[in-house]
Amino acid sequence: MEIKRMDDQMPFLLRYENVAWYEDGAVRILDRRIFPTKREFVTCTEYAQVAQAIADMVTQSAGPYTAVGMGMALAAYQAKDKPAEEQKAFLQKAAKDLANARPTTANRYAKVTGACLEKQIEAIDRGESAIDAAVDVTIASLNRRYGTMQLVGDRLEELIPEGGTILTQCFGETIIGTLIRAAKQKGKHFRVFCAETRPYMQGARLTATCFAEEGFDTTLLTDNMIAYAMEREGIDVFTSAADSIARDGHIANKIGSFQIAILADHFGVPYYVTGIPDAEKKTKDDIVIEMRDPEQVLTINGVRNTAPGVKAIYPSFDIVPPELIRGIVTDRGVFAPADVDRYFDEGEKAFY
Amino acid sequence: MEIKRMDDQMPFLLRYENVAWYEDGAVRILDRRIFPTKREFVTCTEYAQVAQAIADMVTQSAGPYTAVGMGMALAAYQAKDKPAEEQKAFLQKAAKDLANARPTTANRYAKVTGACLEKQIEAIDRGESAIDAAVDVTIASLNRRYGTMQLVGDRLEELIPEGGTILTQCFGETIIGTLIRAAKQKGKHFRVFCAETRPYMQGARLTATCFAEEGFDTTLLTDNMIAYAMEREGIDVFTSAADSIARDGHIANKIGSFQIAILADHFGVPYYVTGIPDAEKKTKDDIVIEMRDPEQVLTINGVRNTAPGVKAIYPSFDIVPPELIRGIVTDRGVFAPADVDRYFDEGEKAFY
Repeated sequence: MEIKRMDDQMPFLLRYENVAWYEDGAVRILDRRIFPTKREFVTCTEYAQVAQAIADMVTQSAGPYTAVGMGMALAAYQAKDKPAEEQKAFLQKAAKDLANARPTTANRYAKVTGACLEKQIEAIDRGESAIDAAVDVTIASLNRRYGTMQLVGDRLEELIPEGGTILTQCFGETIIGTLIRAAKQKGKHFRVFCAETRPYMQGARLTATCFAEEGFDTTLLTDNMIAYAMEREGIDVFTSAADSIARDGHIANKIGSFQIAILADHFGVPYYVTGIPDAEKKTKDDIVIEMRDPEQVLTINGVRNTAPGVKAIYPSFDIVPPELIRGIVTDRGVFAPADVDRYFDEGEKAFY
Repeated sequence: MEIKRMDDQMPFLLRYENVAWYEDGAVRILDRRIFPTKREFVTCTEYAQVAQAIADMVTQSAGPYTAVGMGMALAAYQAKDKPAEEQKAFLQKAAKDLANARPTTANRYAKVTGACLEKQIEAIDRGESAIDAAVDVTIASLNRRYGTMQLVGDRLEELIPEGGTILTQCFGETIIGTLIRAAKQKGKHFRVFCAETRPYMQGARLTATCFAEEGFDTTLLTDNMIAYAMEREGIDVFTSAADSIARDGHIANKIGSFQIAILADHFGVPYYVTGIPDAEKKTKDDIVIEMRDPEQVLTINGVRNTAPGVKAIYPSFDIVPPELIRGIVTDRGVFAPADVDRYFDEGEKAFY
């Protein structure tokens, strides 16, 4: 089948087949835990391995949306020789298991697996391929997200002064791609400072790599250099994506976002959050902060850096209150956080 | 010779012979860059190697004060067979080279090398060992520092509520030792949160190790978890040492201190800086911030984490303004930063 895709001219990391891809009874996922030091893929031959890979953060940011969809294709491959009703039951379980790979974004993953499931059941009833159905739904979902996020990327680009400097936190997968595309189309130039984003180091390994690969002047900061850089290096805009944007203007994003927002406020640097608000999350209390294995804080690149007996915590996300955010940049405009619920005046958006 | 020492009951890291030690024509320096994962020593057979080891941060915090003194003993060993005047000239050069191993603290290192040099010249004139003279001066200096800093440690201990929680930044060598001793003597219990302190990870590798080894409930945080911990974990006191305390109340300390101070201010957590003010540094403009090799930010444990073309900056230190500091804890009392110049009402203190 011919696939029309929205990832043309994107950095390596954002090409659909490098995120997660189903082919011939396997899903191949780029291992972001070691990228770009090594460019290796994790190969899954059962959908449960895809769920585990997401839980282990082999892929993260928007990667899991692709991975759960491709995981549904794999589940269909696993069940293809069963009777129709058993296939459907197997896919129903897969849709649930894949969606629940990580708690903070489970409701969003469920939109992809749910859409796959619906089309897969129709395909089974028509005697068509439930594998192709999931791949088609996943690519359509990816294209829809890229289409919507290009509007966001275009708006974010407009908020960055020509020749200015932005600070990023973590790796906002789709927005990085669409911002880069917007800047290239407009001929906008800016410097990028990337916070390293321990413990996973998304900023160093993913965001900085994408910007540098596309020719941007890119500088890495450890997470404790933010105030120094804001005072002495001239940061014009701090921007991050969000794992969740609640209707009361609170957002959840990678651990560290909260303190950078406080520092941005201290130095008068505007903080723009990008993304689509979460209709189902009325307030911050609807956001679950995932606590991950503290061992990932105690070690770096597999080496334990401290004495036995030292404990650690690893909250994956921070919640940032609306008063620290200058604007939430969406496909429908830039909202003051207190007004973000107005996003839904036009109804919900099919995003995933 | 019998040595009376002030490092009894101290953690492994703070035992004098584990910091830097002259014996039989060599100075052995604990390699803190890999401690506690590995307990290895760098052996120097020329004083220039000691200066290089300090520049390379084989030892840091207060370690170099011991290392430069022991380096002066090594220089005397190197020159021992030369005529007296050549020995003196060689030692003069060594005193200067060792003191200038790192710029931010060169004036302080010079106090140790200068004191060694003076006693070594006297020893040469009397036909005594210039090696022993340097070792004696270094141990006397260490004991004097520990004696003075015990007064600081005692005061800091009093500022921590029983059962409370402190947050540390980097590794304030002597104060960690004296605070631990004070707490043990008083039966004071508190939890310790240590900021990892990238890129060298002093908090993870050195501070957390010392506290855990001595039985304190110790938790490691990556440098981007500070706001999270202040909001949700209940931090009572933030404390750090200082590489320099200027007479106008500005202090220089490890990169990251500035932003933690801003966050502490935001959350109403008092920030206590420990140390002895620098008579020679009138204002912050007298503090030189050392810019180190950015490669150390781009790599962790020898592994490069980002794409070619990504740049980095590595300012070693932050300058924290007086308005973000609750008190400067000295051997002569706790001063409001704006009043710290009053420390010198009693004259200068022989500290190094």
